[in-house]
Amino acid sequence: MRIDILTCLPELLVSPFAHSIVKRAQDKGLAEIHVHQLRDKAINKHGQIDDFVFGGGAGMVLRVEPIAAWMDELMAERSYDAIIYLTPDGETLRQPLANRFSLMQNVLMLCGHYKGIDERIRQTYITHEISVGDYVLSGGELGAAILVDTVVRLLPGVLGNEESALSDSFQDDLLAPPIYTRPAEWRGQAVPEILLSGNTPKIEEWRHDQALARTQARRPDLLS
Amino acid sequence: MRIDILTCLPELLVSPFAHSIVKRAQDKGLAEIHVHQLRDKAINKHGQIDDFVFGGGAGMVLRVEPIAAWMDELMAERSYDAIIYLTPDGETLRQPLANRFSLMQNVLMLCGHYKGIDERIRQTYITHEISVGDYVLSGGELGAAILVDTVVRLLPGVLGNEESALSDSFQDDLLAPPIYTRPAEWRGQAVPEILLSGNTPKIEEWRHDQALARTQARRPDLLS
Repeated sequence: MRIDILTCLPELLVSPFAHSIVKRAQDKGLAEIHVHQLRDKAINKHGQIDDFVFGGGAGMVLRVEPIAAWMDELMAERSYDAIIYLTPDGETLRQPLANRFSLMQNVLMLCGHYKGIDERIRQTYITHEISVGDYVLSGGELGAAILVDTVVRLLPGVLGNEESALSDSFQDDLLAPPIYTRPAEWRGQAVPEILLSGNTPKIEEWRHDQALARTQARRPDLLS
Repeated sequence: MRIDILTCLPELLVSPFAHSIVKRAQDKGLAEIHVHQLRDKAINKHGQIDDFVFGGGAGMVLRVEPIAAWMDELMAERSYDAIIYLTPDGETLRQPLANRFSLMQNVLMLCGHYKGIDERIRQTYITHEISVGDYVLSGGELGAAILVDTVVRLLPGVLGNEESALSDSFQDDLLAPPIYTRPAEWRGQAVPEILLSGNTPKIEEWRHDQALARTQARRPDLLS
């Protein structure tokens, strides 16, 4: 999978892509991530990429030209399965959507900054508007980092068997059950006895009951 | 505001905290962020912090001792208004919750990794379990980065007037209206005429109508 990201803050994305699962996916050649600086296509020598909002009001807006120049260049090189704008008014990212993106070959992500981007970019280029949650971030960079992480870990070969994504929360519409590790007793708190029994069918039953109870208590919306 | 973060991947958080609004908040002395390496409190000389899951199954679990050692040390130094575990089965982060956290003095965040943390840590220390969205990440680090960004930008003095957070999506239960900047015409696409009229009351009315229409079309749940 190839992921291109357009941003005016490429340096913000350095460390999230240089560690853990996302690093491993790149090292294994399973994911290629290219981060492009919007300012490289600035409208003048001063590096200008934004301008005042038409109609007045607070905040600067990313202009069309630098984004369009990058889009045109990248789209001439390959065909993209999705051109995504990270924005709080987009479709909310949930696991099934991440699963769908993980089946794609080429994905382009655009990070807004300041007050956002000129609406005409959204109408002209964007195929998917995605929000990682109902909160406001300083820019789209962390949204892109989230989307990359959720998607890349699903690519075949990225996770080892021992990390299988299938037992994660949301893959079966249930939250994960409580988990415990050694020591069996810590400050007077013992691990539930069933987990030490070696009785695998009973343990699986206990886990399913716990997962169901936790989902009912915390996220009944997932069950309906 | 002081934010302490416990993680086994502190290096993943370097660039998100070194740029943009979060950097500015720290430079101005409005936010202090301390990232602590769980491995500094490993249970042995090999740096071990995790172990197999009781009852069998895929994935490693963060052990209680390294986390407890950090918690005890930090909690002896100051009192925390919230001790947050970033986890997909937590309460979903939304803007009003970010607003509440932004009023706190000391906040501690724990990032899970691998399959998660021993349940006894959750029962013993954690006051808030928070999810940034219904998707699975490789660890809690990006969740912590999101939470820090949403909260820090709300601290008084962090944003300038020209960036006021009050006109953002979600602060008034409406998505933001479309925005435009120069040029007024681009590849045959003109900016809506009303925005060039200079008639501020009419422009505000148009924006409100657009925000309402966009919210009705995309997120009717926000209106109910």
